[in-house]
Amino acid sequence: MFEKADTAIETLGEARVPTSYRRGIQCSHNNCFVCDSDRVLLETSLEKVLACARAGETPVSFEKAGPRKSIYFDPKKLRCALVTCGGLCPGLNDIIRAIVLELYYAYGVRNIYGVRHGFAGFIPEYGYDFEDLAPDKVADIHGRGGTMLGSSRGHQDIGEIVDCLDRMNIGILFTIGGDGTLMASTKICDAIKERGLKTAVIGIPKTIDNDIYLVSKSFGFDTAVDMATHAIRSAHTEALGYPLGVGLVKLMGRYSGFIAVTASLAQQDVNFVLIPEVDFDLEGPNGLLASLRERLATRGHAVIVVAEGAGQKFFGGASGTDASGNVRLHDIGLFLKDEIGKYLKSQGMDSGVKYIDPSYMIRSLPANSNDNVFCSFLARNAVHAGMAGKTRMLIGYWHDEFVHVPMDASAGKRKKVDPNGKLWQSLLEATGQEDLRQGQALGFRE
Amino acid sequence: MFEKADTAIETLGEARVPTSYRRGIQCSHNNCFVCDSDRVLLETSLEKVLACARAGETPVSFEKAGPRKSIYFDPKKLRCALVTCGGLCPGLNDIIRAIVLELYYAYGVRNIYGVRHGFAGFIPEYGYDFEDLAPDKVADIHGRGGTMLGSSRGHQDIGEIVDCLDRMNIGILFTIGGDGTLMASTKICDAIKERGLKTAVIGIPKTIDNDIYLVSKSFGFDTAVDMATHAIRSAHTEALGYPLGVGLVKLMGRYSGFIAVTASLAQQDVNFVLIPEVDFDLEGPNGLLASLRERLATRGHAVIVVAEGAGQKFFGGASGTDASGNVRLHDIGLFLKDEIGKYLKSQGMDSGVKYIDPSYMIRSLPANSNDNVFCSFLARNAVHAGMAGKTRMLIGYWHDEFVHVPMDASAGKRKKVDPNGKLWQSLLEATGQEDLRQGQALGFRE
Amino acid sequence: MFEKADTAIETLGEARVPTSYRRGIQCSHNNCFVCDSDRVLLETSLEKVLACARAGETPVSFEKAGPRKSIYFDPKKLRCALVTCGGLCPGLNDIIRAIVLELYYAYGVRNIYGVRHGFAGFIPEYGYDFEDLAPDKVADIHGRGGTMLGSSRGHQDIGEIVDCLDRMNIGILFTIGGDGTLMASTKICDAIKERGLKTAVIGIPKTIDNDIYLVSKSFGFDTAVDMATHAIRSAHTEALGYPLGVGLVKLMGRYSGFIAVTASLAQQDVNFVLIPEVDFDLEGPNGLLASLRERLATRGHAVIVVAEGAGQKFFGGASGTDASGNVRLHDIGLFLKDEIGKYLKSQGMDSGVKYIDPSYMIRSLPANSNDNVFCSFLARNAVHAGMAGKTRMLIGYWHDEFVHVPMDASAGKRKKVDPNGKLWQSLLEATGQEDLRQGQALGFRE
Amino acid sequence: MFEKADTAIETLGEARVPTSYRRGIQCSHNNCFVCDSDRVLLETSLEKVLACARAGETPVSFEKAGPRKSIYFDPKKLRCALVTCGGLCPGLNDIIRAIVLELYYAYGVRNIYGVRHGFAGFIPEYGYDFEDLAPDKVADIHGRGGTMLGSSRGHQDIGEIVDCLDRMNIGILFTIGGDGTLMASTKICDAIKERGLKTAVIGIPKTIDNDIYLVSKSFGFDTAVDMATHAIRSAHTEALGYPLGVGLVKLMGRYSGFIAVTASLAQQDVNFVLIPEVDFDLEGPNGLLASLRERLATRGHAVIVVAEGAGQKFFGGASGTDASGNVRLHDIGLFLKDEIGKYLKSQGMDSGVKYIDPSYMIRSLPANSNDNVFCSFLARNAVHAGMAGKTRMLIGYWHDEFVHVPMDASAGKRKKVDPNGKLWQSLLEATGQEDLRQGQALGFRE
Repeated sequence: MFEKADTAIETLGEARVPTSYRRGIQCSHNNCFVCDSDRVLLETSLEKVLACARAGETPVSFEKAGPRKSIYFDPKKLRCALVTCGGLCPGLNDIIRAIVLELYYAYGVRNIYGVRHGFAGFIPEYGYDFEDLAPDKVADIHGRGGTMLGSSRGHQDIGEIVDCLDRMNIGILFTIGGDGTLMASTKICDAIKERGLKTAVIGIPKTIDNDIYLVSKSFGFDTAVDMATHAIRSAHTEALGYPLGVGLVKLMGRYSGFIAVTASLAQQDVNFVLIPEVDFDLEGPNGLLASLRERLATRGHAVIVVAEGAGQKFFGGASGTDASGNVRLHDIGLFLKDEIGKYLKSQGMDSGVKYIDPSYMIRSLPANSNDNVFCSFLARNAVHAGMAGKTRMLIGYWHDEFVHVPMDASAGKRKKVDPNGKLWQSLLEATGQEDLRQGQALGFRE
Repeated sequence: MFEKADTAIETLGEARVPTSYRRGIQCSHNNCFVCDSDRVLLETSLEKVLACARAGETPVSFEKAGPRKSIYFDPKKLRCALVTCGGLCPGLNDIIRAIVLELYYAYGVRNIYGVRHGFAGFIPEYGYDFEDLAPDKVADIHGRGGTMLGSSRGHQDIGEIVDCLDRMNIGILFTIGGDGTLMASTKICDAIKERGLKTAVIGIPKTIDNDIYLVSKSFGFDTAVDMATHAIRSAHTEALGYPLGVGLVKLMGRYSGFIAVTASLAQQDVNFVLIPEVDFDLEGPNGLLASLRERLATRGHAVIVVAEGAGQKFFGGASGTDASGNVRLHDIGLFLKDEIGKYLKSQGMDSGVKYIDPSYMIRSLPANSNDNVFCSFLARNAVHAGMAGKTRMLIGYWHDEFVHVPMDASAGKRKKVDPNGKLWQSLLEATGQEDLRQGQALGFRE
Repeated sequence: MFEKADTAIETLGEARVPTSYRRGIQCSHNNCFVCDSDRVLLETSLEKVLACARAGETPVSFEKAGPRKSIYFDPKKLRCALVTCGGLCPGLNDIIRAIVLELYYAYGVRNIYGVRHGFAGFIPEYGYDFEDLAPDKVADIHGRGGTMLGSSRGHQDIGEIVDCLDRMNIGILFTIGGDGTLMASTKICDAIKERGLKTAVIGIPKTIDNDIYLVSKSFGFDTAVDMATHAIRSAHTEALGYPLGVGLVKLMGRYSGFIAVTASLAQQDVNFVLIPEVDFDLEGPNGLLASLRERLATRGHAVIVVAEGAGQKFFGGASGTDASGNVRLHDIGLFLKDEIGKYLKSQGMDSGVKYIDPSYMIRSLPANSNDNVFCSFLARNAVHAGMAGKTRMLIGYWHDEFVHVPMDASAGKRKKVDPNGKLWQSLLEATGQEDLRQGQALGFRE
Repeated sequence: MFEKADTAIETLGEARVPTSYRRGIQCSHNNCFVCDSDRVLLETSLEKVLACARAGETPVSFEKAGPRKSIYFDPKKLRCALVTCGGLCPGLNDIIRAIVLELYYAYGVRNIYGVRHGFAGFIPEYGYDFEDLAPDKVADIHGRGGTMLGSSRGHQDIGEIVDCLDRMNIGILFTIGGDGTLMASTKICDAIKERGLKTAVIGIPKTIDNDIYLVSKSFGFDTAVDMATHAIRSAHTEALGYPLGVGLVKLMGRYSGFIAVTASLAQQDVNFVLIPEVDFDLEGPNGLLASLRERLATRGHAVIVVAEGAGQKFFGGASGTDASGNVRLHDIGLFLKDEIGKYLKSQGMDSGVKYIDPSYMIRSLPANSNDNVFCSFLARNAVHAGMAGKTRMLIGYWHDEFVHVPMDASAGKRKKVDPNGKLWQSLLEATGQEDLRQGQALGFRE
């Protein structure tokens, strides 16, 4: 999944300031500190590690996250900024809260700014929308969905953002956003370096779809799956409620089906799961429509879960891009609702397709307990990294450890559901779903 | 609200059988029993009652529900049937469960049949789909949404239904459904009478919209409001999340806005509530669009709740009827989403309308505690009424009492939100919403 | 239940100020207003009303709540205070929020004070703890449990409270509390009158136990029942989990068993419900212990729900009073856990009693949707009453209408579960529970 | 944490039967299968792996779980048994369900028995309580808490258990339980081997405390933390509700504080967390009582979370063992409630300690989505292992992979919270809690 990446982390310079980190000072053995030489293996396969050893190579690894004994910034003079970008995701407020509390209490930083409404808050024409942040402003936000700073979509001028960072003398910028934000962050780093500024940029990867490359789990995902199962349960109840009832649920997942698959494993009432990574046809003896008809004929009801990025091939071409530059997806949910409705009517099986799209009810949730804890670790480690002068990196989670991942290693790539991996194979077991492609009958079914 | 209705309840004949009702037998003072002469006033206004007294009239009242000392049927020989019709609604399984348990344990009835998939289960071509019901079949169903019997939409032949009742020698038929089911039940009663059969028909009014005439509260409504507030909270979080954010929620309510209004009162983050009972315009200085723009300009975000039956005037004409004969409504939610989107774009205020339609996630819920208790009372009183030989009636709830309401007094009429009543007036206070009609500027705003 | 009470409401004087009530002004027909002559019948029984008419008497009725066309106070000069007293109850923050918003937006009152930590906040030695309240302070509190003002238990000096009201020139005092608070409020009214002050005192009855006399439903009760059912479900699961498993749940209810009974009806897995209103024995052939043994022998598991005020006879005498003057109850939950444990061990049936006391998890909940709406109506009507110069009254709810109830008619009395009424009788049906008194075998069981 | 363990997995013999595993057969590339040589590293530290390489050693690793290409048992003849033991834990029904469905549908096994009420179901005097399991029996159990098979505590005779396995010709026994069950399972394996039987024993480790050695996460833990946060939120609301309010929550954790710590990180309203791994005193200037008084004096309220196994030193000695042989813990929750109450009274700070013990409300929950998915993976991998003839092992989860762990490597040891690790250090940051031992003032606080 990852080859020959450069996993070295860029720094602003040598970390010479003895840390102000409160816990570390108290800790007699100093074993609270992490060294840059502490590294976590990318691969946990014994075979691969032995192969490396035989070839005289060092296995690929990530720098471990955590507080360093020496830091780069003087906490008293340091000014930090936070910005949240793109769509809502459970946990944004937890991240904001934990960054502010860690900077303030653990390191003694007093100048912390929240940039309002995404990168737009840096731009003169939107009025430089900053908000002073201190513990009392964030103490109670963790029970609320959304982001207290507001967000926005759309590109902003990198030069103007860096102008603002420079003028405000920001030492650490925390960017919380998805792949687009990551790309923008690398460009901000380029401009910072070009101008010789000393501003660290630490990314906290946000994607409800859980598809960030080199990040085994992203915040908000667990909460999203939890709520998605409610939608599936509803679809199942509706499908059971009528003769030949069909429930259809559209879930998030532009390029990857992690939510659709995981929620279907959690609420095992689903018969067909359609994701971007696995091709399917509507027509043909093995296509979705015929398979659905067979299911209805034998079992009397059916539930279908579709990820929003699935089945885009059924639409002629792209429908443009949105303000953030994301390809605008065709609405596969409404499309399937119509196609299935028409088909079943033609088969004399019409009982209406019950369609549920819970997307905004999911995105706006407050984080559940699992994500609360996860967010607080992500945020604290982001602060540790920034204080140590690390930059152009994001906080990842890999084999139960928080690690430093270079932005360039992750930006522009995506994690996907592996059709041969245990997740999709388990899904096939749980649903009993077959290959839904037209021409696959012979090789597969017999 | 109710004038000169005949509130007398029809019976199959004199109730001469000493009741087998277990509690009643044990109850030494016999004060567990209700007499037919126990009646509940329709109006609780002192003034109206005094006016009646002065005019020498008896105030309108309903027969009180509850166990009678003598019953009509011999429990040992009695055969009962239950049927659930129309859309799902929280509490259907609670009703089924409580009817079965009451018939079985409290009266000793042993032959109880569940008709599957609505009235269709009575029809030969669908194969007379009956299910024997006994306590073990229903013991655990109250935690589940939907109906264990299944439901269906669409008219069935009254003659065939009564043929089946006759052939199966059904003594009491419990029909659980909405206004269409009520109408069908009166026709079944006509046919029963014509044929000289001795079958009681007891209706349990089901409408998630809470719009049944002469029924102050219908089961499932409380659960529906509970979940609807989650959708509103999500819309509010999404609206707050972006500059000029707009959240739009479509809720149930074909002819009445009870869910929309009550949920907006429960989750007071709503700025505009649109219901069938109160006219509104899109255009004009007071119209929704201009009012929304003003709200966004001053407050930066807005939440709109629309009942599905609101604003049908914006569509040329009817879009036909569904299988149950209900007028097929145009989709006001998607319409508003598009119109508001286009308008805001034209005003340079576009940030996308976040649209939430939680209908099927609401309809499929299991009943909450409040509805659980309510359903068990409705069901037990339905059984008491049926055992006493009452027929052509439904179980109502009026001023904290369960009452017998003649089907003919309720069928075909609807309860509506009174624009001058306390509910709508409270809503106006809570939202700060003004009259949204074009020509109402002068008389109302100043 | 109520006889010859004086239901007349005391006023501070004639209401001569044209109302500043925003909705009313806009309302062309003025039909938003309620007159003092609008009254709601206490009894809805036709028979009782007719008996009154025959006797030439006027049936007992309550004054209807709602906005009056003329008010007593000048909103511009008016100063209001709110205080929350006693134990936590879901909905306190909703009440505070709605009172503040209604005073501020609907009437234009600008001086609103929250008294912190109950009546203690009025007392010099605690430092006169007042908090200025305005919409921004309360806008977001409705999602939180508890009370933003804090509460306290214990008596305070009435003279000092009224000194403070006088010195601060408070026109309306809203007291939100239970029976003790009601009693204190009447004494405050006495002192106010004695001193010739013009301060209205409006009570909003708070009791999670739902036992306030002349109030058909108190806020927080619905939320409490909801959570209580979770505890019961847990007890049932634990009981089912082991051979001869016993689950025991203690619920609130010092003098009345409304929560215990209603929750047991909502979650019908309970076999024995013990409440203060219905006597029971432990020993004897019909006692709880023998009945439990029989249940375990035949069904293998059992669930018991006990209200905290039940079974106090098993303890020698009172265990004193708490700071509020409430009789300190003996802990019937722990007592039963021990007694049942010992008894079952002696019978060779020991599998441990799984004991659940969810009290503080219930009291601290935020209100559910149903209670949210209810609280906002209570609060708004309290404001209407106060503005109209009404005093020494509380806001009640009776036959679906909000009404004015004189404090003296309610204070010191309690609503109880009627052992012959539909609630307890339904409970007996649902649980199958028999009379648990020793000597009741003959008359009842055969 | 783990040294020189023998991680080799015992087998019943060579796996020569071509698998009947449905997915595997369909999978053209056969890459659904896992080989015994696929191993997962115990340590992911680059440094440790390089040190091994330098020393010429092979790093410690676990055998990877998953379907094997060849299996040991003939599915047609195979008879399997499942047993659940010890206390309830969220997810037991999910495990049962997934084992049955996997055996039935994925491998074609038709003889599956559920042993009722733990190991007692094997014993003649309890009547050999077995239940035939098939998909229809388990299809709907995953929404319910507890275990459909029932459980029990207490030792049973190993010989009688193996007699029963032998007589019933059981090929695979799945034991789902905690450390005691694991110990018993190893003894069953000993007896099986001694008798020369061919019965595989596969353990699925169950501990809501999450303290199973070599298992990074145990099922039910995530659900437990979720509910524990509700209890903490309640304690916080109660503490805030009164002057000097104290909330005290006792959580599960006999030997380890994982639930207490994780829930306190998830709901960051806690000021003191007391766990078995970290010593604390009541008395002394740094003790809990003085620290609490200081907190109350400065902040006005406090929340304490205590794991049930903490502070056992305050009791003279052990209070015996329970039926399962577990040391019976003294009740630290009630003890602290009393001690704190007395102390605060002595300091004139008494406002009552609000005590919450949510244990049985947590243990009886159905699994949340996260645990649902986790359970289904555990169960499926247990089936794969059993079918391949593996035995004397349990299914573990390590660095995102499911692995085979020898029972002997785990039984009798416990995972603990490391006082120097990131979990406890993060907790100290989140709570601001200092060392609560008497004599630690000098070295630690300055």
